[in-house]
Amino acid sequence: MSTEAVPATPVVSEAKEAEAHHNGKASLKYVYLFHEVDQVEELVGGDWEEVRGLLGGKGANLADMTRLGIPVPPGFTVTTQACNAYLAAGEKFPPGMWEQEVEAVQAIEEMTGKKFGDPENPLLVSCRSGAKFSMPGMMDTILNIGLNDDVAARMIERSGDARFVYDLYRRLVQMFGSVVMDVPDEVFEAVITGRRRKAGVESDAELSAEDWQVVTRKFKEIFRTYTGMDFPADPYEQLRLATEAVFKSWNSKRAIAYRNAAGIPHDLGTAVNIQTMVFGNMSDNSATGVAMSRNASTGEPELEGDFLINAQGEDVVAGIRHTERLSKLKEEMPEIYAEFEEISRKLEKHYRNMQDMEFTIEDGKLWLLQTRDGKRTAQAEVRIAVDMVDEGLISKKEAVMRVQPAQVDFFLHPQLDAAAVKAVTPIAKGLNVSPGAAVGVVAFDADTAERWAKEDGRQVIMVRPETKPDDVHGMLAANGILTSRGGRTSHAALVARQFGKPAVVGVGEMEIDLDGRAMSIGDLTIKEGEWISLDGTNGLVYAGKLPTVVPNINNPYLLKLLSWADEFRKLGVWANADYPRDAERAREYGAEGIGLCRTEHMFFEPERMPIVQQMIMAKTKPEQIEAINKLLPFQRGDFEGLFRAMDGQPVIIRLLDPPLHEFLPSYDDLVLSLADLKVRLQHGHTMAEMDELLGEIRTKQRFLERVEALRELNPMLGTRGVRLGILIPELTRMQVRAIFEAACNCIREGVDVRPEVMIPLISHVNELKVQQAALEEEAKLVMTEQGMEINYKFGTMIEIPRAALTAGEIAEVAQFFSFGTNDLTQTTFGISRDDAESGFLLEYQHRGILDANPFATIDANGVGRLMEIAVTDGRNARPGLEVGICGEHGGDPASIAICHKLNLNYVSCSPFRVPIARLAAAHAALAEE
Amino acid sequence: MSTEAVPATPVVSEAKEAEAHHNGKASLKYVYLFHEVDQVEELVGGDWEEVRGLLGGKGANLADMTRLGIPVPPGFTVTTQACNAYLAAGEKFPPGMWEQEVEAVQAIEEMTGKKFGDPENPLLVSCRSGAKFSMPGMMDTILNIGLNDDVAARMIERSGDARFVYDLYRRLVQMFGSVVMDVPDEVFEAVITGRRRKAGVESDAELSAEDWQVVTRKFKEIFRTYTGMDFPADPYEQLRLATEAVFKSWNSKRAIAYRNAAGIPHDLGTAVNIQTMVFGNMSDNSATGVAMSRNASTGEPELEGDFLINAQGEDVVAGIRHTERLSKLKEEMPEIYAEFEEISRKLEKHYRNMQDMEFTIEDGKLWLLQTRDGKRTAQAEVRIAVDMVDEGLISKKEAVMRVQPAQVDFFLHPQLDAAAVKAVTPIAKGLNVSPGAAVGVVAFDADTAERWAKEDGRQVIMVRPETKPDDVHGMLAANGILTSRGGRTSHAALVARQFGKPAVVGVGEMEIDLDGRAMSIGDLTIKEGEWISLDGTNGLVYAGKLPTVVPNINNPYLLKLLSWADEFRKLGVWANADYPRDAERAREYGAEGIGLCRTEHMFFEPERMPIVQQMIMAKTKPEQIEAINKLLPFQRGDFEGLFRAMDGQPVIIRLLDPPLHEFLPSYDDLVLSLADLKVRLQHGHTMAEMDELLGEIRTKQRFLERVEALRELNPMLGTRGVRLGILIPELTRMQVRAIFEAACNCIREGVDVRPEVMIPLISHVNELKVQQAALEEEAKLVMTEQGMEINYKFGTMIEIPRAALTAGEIAEVAQFFSFGTNDLTQTTFGISRDDAESGFLLEYQHRGILDANPFATIDANGVGRLMEIAVTDGRNARPGLEVGICGEHGGDPASIAICHKLNLNYVSCSPFRVPIARLAAAHAALAEE
Repeated sequence: MSTEAVPATPVVSEAKEAEAHHNGKASLKYVYLFHEVDQVEELVGGDWEEVRGLLGGKGANLADMTRLGIPVPPGFTVTTQACNAYLAAGEKFPPGMWEQEVEAVQAIEEMTGKKFGDPENPLLVSCRSGAKFSMPGMMDTILNIGLNDDVAARMIERSGDARFVYDLYRRLVQMFGSVVMDVPDEVFEAVITGRRRKAGVESDAELSAEDWQVVTRKFKEIFRTYTGMDFPADPYEQLRLATEAVFKSWNSKRAIAYRNAAGIPHDLGTAVNIQTMVFGNMSDNSATGVAMSRNASTGEPELEGDFLINAQGEDVVAGIRHTERLSKLKEEMPEIYAEFEEISRKLEKHYRNMQDMEFTIEDGKLWLLQTRDGKRTAQAEVRIAVDMVDEGLISKKEAVMRVQPAQVDFFLHPQLDAAAVKAVTPIAKGLNVSPGAAVGVVAFDADTAERWAKEDGRQVIMVRPETKPDDVHGMLAANGILTSRGGRTSHAALVARQFGKPAVVGVGEMEIDLDGRAMSIGDLTIKEGEWISLDGTNGLVYAGKLPTVVPNINNPYLLKLLSWADEFRKLGVWANADYPRDAERAREYGAEGIGLCRTEHMFFEPERMPIVQQMIMAKTKPEQIEAINKLLPFQRGDFEGLFRAMDGQPVIIRLLDPPLHEFLPSYDDLVLSLADLKVRLQHGHTMAEMDELLGEIRTKQRFLERVEALRELNPMLGTRGVRLGILIPELTRMQVRAIFEAACNCIREGVDVRPEVMIPLISHVNELKVQQAALEEEAKLVMTEQGMEINYKFGTMIEIPRAALTAGEIAEVAQFFSFGTNDLTQTTFGISRDDAESGFLLEYQHRGILDANPFATIDANGVGRLMEIAVTDGRNARPGLEVGICGEHGGDPASIAICHKLNLNYVSCSPFRVPIARLAAAHAALAEE
Repeated sequence: MSTEAVPATPVVSEAKEAEAHHNGKASLKYVYLFHEVDQVEELVGGDWEEVRGLLGGKGANLADMTRLGIPVPPGFTVTTQACNAYLAAGEKFPPGMWEQEVEAVQAIEEMTGKKFGDPENPLLVSCRSGAKFSMPGMMDTILNIGLNDDVAARMIERSGDARFVYDLYRRLVQMFGSVVMDVPDEVFEAVITGRRRKAGVESDAELSAEDWQVVTRKFKEIFRTYTGMDFPADPYEQLRLATEAVFKSWNSKRAIAYRNAAGIPHDLGTAVNIQTMVFGNMSDNSATGVAMSRNASTGEPELEGDFLINAQGEDVVAGIRHTERLSKLKEEMPEIYAEFEEISRKLEKHYRNMQDMEFTIEDGKLWLLQTRDGKRTAQAEVRIAVDMVDEGLISKKEAVMRVQPAQVDFFLHPQLDAAAVKAVTPIAKGLNVSPGAAVGVVAFDADTAERWAKEDGRQVIMVRPETKPDDVHGMLAANGILTSRGGRTSHAALVARQFGKPAVVGVGEMEIDLDGRAMSIGDLTIKEGEWISLDGTNGLVYAGKLPTVVPNINNPYLLKLLSWADEFRKLGVWANADYPRDAERAREYGAEGIGLCRTEHMFFEPERMPIVQQMIMAKTKPEQIEAINKLLPFQRGDFEGLFRAMDGQPVIIRLLDPPLHEFLPSYDDLVLSLADLKVRLQHGHTMAEMDELLGEIRTKQRFLERVEALRELNPMLGTRGVRLGILIPELTRMQVRAIFEAACNCIREGVDVRPEVMIPLISHVNELKVQQAALEEEAKLVMTEQGMEINYKFGTMIEIPRAALTAGEIAEVAQFFSFGTNDLTQTTFGISRDDAESGFLLEYQHRGILDANPFATIDANGVGRLMEIAVTDGRNARPGLEVGICGEHGGDPASIAICHKLNLNYVSCSPFRVPIARLAAAHAALAEE
């Protein structure tokens, strides 16, 4: 066996040389006591990653704690380098390694005053694997190495606790047998089960000392039967075999498969950690527990945890015995508690994060067994980050980076109570289109939803196959929305996000029987009026009424954190808002402007729809203009409200976008109800009934004719947006007039008005020129009439590939761009989102053809490239061109990072996502530093 | 008046200097005799464009002919420079100009032996304007300047033809009065009308010498009344006033407006041409006529024209007298004819083109009055170009450039007889989607069309609101197709072009009453079985049966010209063909490969549709696979036929593209017919009838359920193309198997098979990878089974913006690209062509928002930019990547020029456009030289 066989990673080579030099002998140093970590660090040039590479994650952590002066049970680590050498040499320890391991045991003996294999004062150790990255398939822990018949017998004599000692002993034999010698664990378990049956008890805890003694004897017999050898009584033999077993487990089938899947190199090797056993169940002056350095739910700066006097660690976790709160330890062992507080502070200071610690008290002596960064709620995350800045532990930038944008959602929406959720199984899963939890009784139409909510004060979930514009009043009245069809940008999803209503859509497995007033999912049937709960954050639906928790955006820690985020971010954060109440909310959440006001949403209001329909159904131009003019005062009022709410901030108003047929009843409904009316006509009726029926048929027939004329094979690519504005210039002019009259009125009130007029769906610069001419003429007219001058901008959506590709030409006319990435994604991919998100796109994501839903996160290579072309060409043509994004992506953190890279001026998102966007924008800026 | 006032264009400055130097005196040379053209040419450095600038177009042409030794009536030109000087000086002749004009008259007198104003031998001249570019609004011609009472009286004495002389004289007074002095022409015409009434005759020709004498006297009275002066008897005064009138007409309102519209600079000025009058009606030894140097219909190399003995030019044009063919002149005046032939040859040689000439014979002397390039038919254009190469007049390149690609269409499709078309008015105009003429009786459905055509041998035009796949048998049987709906890429248009059937679609004004079996356009009603004629080349529709002309692609001149085109072009020309018969035709027309075989077209055949529907309606996977497997032998047979037809040439086969619902009845039809069936159910029926009705309802209900499940809001952006192939991999495998089994079978027959498999509608490289894996596996399987190795390529359509934007990634997998510019245009513009081409796109073109229909010609800035990105990135990733185009644009000359610039390897178009594409590709290549 020669040292040349050792795989030579750079680290290892350096280590080899340094060691060879240092020790002046041929064998390398393969074994480090925990407190020798400085040597290791020096060896690898101070790089902690390389320390972890050599000692493994667990070994490095234990060494690190030891160096900090934390009371860690003494121990040592056999390096990954030793493992690699062992495997390379055909499963032989490299020269000198075993000798070093024995020396290390002796060093521990010195530190603890105990002796390995000495019945009078026996040292027991554990053996654990520990690779650089934690990895399933590696060897499990072996506890209590050092026990044998002699040691056990003397321990019983000394402690008088035979049950405790035999339990330790049988564990050693069982773990050693199954883990080191591959004896099937079931065989051992069967013995215990048999013993329980024989003793007539239910749990292991009820077995007696005698039982465990018998079990231990039987385990040793099993060991002999399966391995053909006696259970090794020699502690050093136990240690040697355990060490080898760890090395071998590096190449276990499961470990290799995992490394392949996770992309972990196969030549890292694993370290072996040998550590002194300590026992929290040795006496009433002993205890064991777990603790967080701060409250994991609220983030309050106080130790929090559970412990048990005279118990083992697994007793705390298993929940067999009733644990005590940590405050009780303060009463019972005040000095230990004080020491623990001190350690907790020290660890936090060292790791600069809240710690999740395991500890054991053995006969009045506190030991720390493990520490790691603690898991916590979003609320705690925010408070801890902010507190740690105040405490000087971390910088503001670190605090900002530590809180994930998605965690901010927690402060914006009610959440299902976490404990309650754990206890139940969801009945269905759909698309998580609008976050937050909602609980209510099922209502299958908008009118019912509204009546129950408003008149009866009931909490309602509105459930529909899909929603339409005339369902909005019901959606507003409901706590949440659930649909069986539709995608991430369906009507239901858009409206829900717009108004911050939790929503789950596209639950394909849910069948809704509108006539029977019931929905079914598999065998489960839920009738109208029964309770359901839904979580729009993850798309899960539950039967029944689950408890909810309502957090608050005005959390002072969150506000502080967001204010720091604002210092770092370079992107502006604006909001999409159509109504003054949304604009006010957006502003409260920190929006710096309105990036998108969709004027058509105003057309859907009940008192306006008839006028809009009159405009569409008009047979003559004057009739059409008359209807358009009736809309003027409504629109003017809308804009006045918006301008007041956004005093001093820009407001981008987009002119009418959707195809006209959206304002009329659907073709299918009309065809079906006409067929129905004609059937009814064939039955006997009075003259009056006949007249009424015929009148209804005539009306529907008229609607149908118009709908047929407007009908398009692909409405998404049809007559809408600027195309509509060009075909009906009077509509453009009315909207422009409303904007400018509203602006004049507001200025007179002293409001600082900053309107920006935006044209949708441009594909050619000439479309913009035509609209610009109409706009300028009308704007001048209004300004002359009113004797005022309004500063405004004129710009366009970039939401069609050709607009992006010809952005240079378009920027000659447009004073600003706003990316409509919903439509841009549809056209760039050639995907109809409404069809695809509940169709082949699911299959694509499922099969990994697409990493992410491109409607959730901007597709950087395709859509992103178009955006880059548009930004570059646009700013070349018009230096300083204002460019933003108003698509749904504007509120998505990954997309915000792309917008930051593209040097956009701002992102605009729904009011509820403004705080998230502020944080995400800061992340994007800081990630670049 | 100083020379500084003359606008100084560079030409003029040079002229000024040179002249001042040459003549050694202050005044410039403003007047050039026709034979002094060499002086002018020298003056401007030999640039003929500048000669035209100074002498005007007409003056330069006359001077050029004179220089060639052609007998042109002597004359001179007053330069545009003189005009500019006149206008700049406030309407005063520049110094010396008038003197030069008088000198020039004297020079003519010497040449002709006649004398201006001399009653014994009077010189009469015409005065015409002549700017560089011909322009409406400029001064009309004044003839017979030099006549007055004395001259007229003596001419009558000498000729004895008072009628002739008074007609000349009254024309001078009338033209002079109306053109120079602004006397309303109606006043003069009223006198002639009155005279006709008095004489009791119908035409001017019947008026006597006395009548014209009276008319002349009255004209002079009118002249005096309106102008306050006598008609000027002095010929020089006539000449001076006429010259001034031409100058002034440069700034007439109409001329200025025209120049503004046409973008002609306002500082060019007009020249004045003064030319000796010659008279073809002076004696029986006189004649006048027009002639083409070659046959304008056929291109045969022989003089062709008409003439009249003893007549004026306008008599030939007006068609009052029966003209003689030019061959008659050969008999009657053989020497003159020989001289004319000689002149014709000389002019052709000089102008290197066929000439359109006007001539007059005055007392046995031949004069040429005008020559210009002659208009001709497409057939003549081709023959003349080829003949002229053989005659050494022009080069092959010139010949190729001279024939426009669109002219080749003439050889491919029947044409309406031009004379017949002149005599009738079209009844409607639609989109000209498939060229050529068709005549037939109207049939309103496919079955009728097929029955009438096949069983009764009738010629049929199939007329439908729009066509669907199951109409194809009728379309094939019909001579032509006419629809009231649909755009340039509607089903009707695509199929018509595919099969070379003339078609006009989208005739919105046409209403079709399918029940009444009649169509109406305005007040006109045409019943089924009545004749109509349509011209797919220009979109016009005629009532009745017009005669047609059927040309032939195998015209030897065309074949020669195309073979030259092939020498020059760099683009390959391939064809889109789905059936062996199309492939054969394409090859006959010169295709070098199949760029697109649409496999779905094979699915629409009547015997296969039930199997395709079975596949779609399948409830289980095995049922679906069973149907798919039934399609295999059909597809294999299809491909075998194609491979045989394209022996030795590449064949690109595209896997299934359209959404599945296209193979099922339409949603609307199903809903309506179900509603109808349910109504019928309510009436009394026998049990058997009831059963039948219920069965039909069940079947339709099943269809409807499937159609509803497949229904998409925007099918164009939906589940089709590769998305289908991924969802139903068995379909991909069946098609791949069919291709490779067919290839193996053909190779065994000795056919050289070159299959290329193409995946449609890619937007992400991963889609292609998934399909590639399936393809390779199946291909290998077949090759192993058959024990053969097939060379094939695997590639993709680029028809979605994202595919173009990520072409670099895609080219790592794809071995070839083919641009599907139909869909690429739709997605790049965000336009649904079927909806838009009969909708807002018309308005956009009408209003000039778009210059051209982007579905007819590639949009260079948008779609073209994406194509450029795809070609560049694709070839960077895979050098030498084969890139072609298979969209409709592949047959459009302007788009072919773009493809040439983009360095594509080939264009692929319908077989009927292959010859056009060959020529267009040559044009593109030659335009670059």
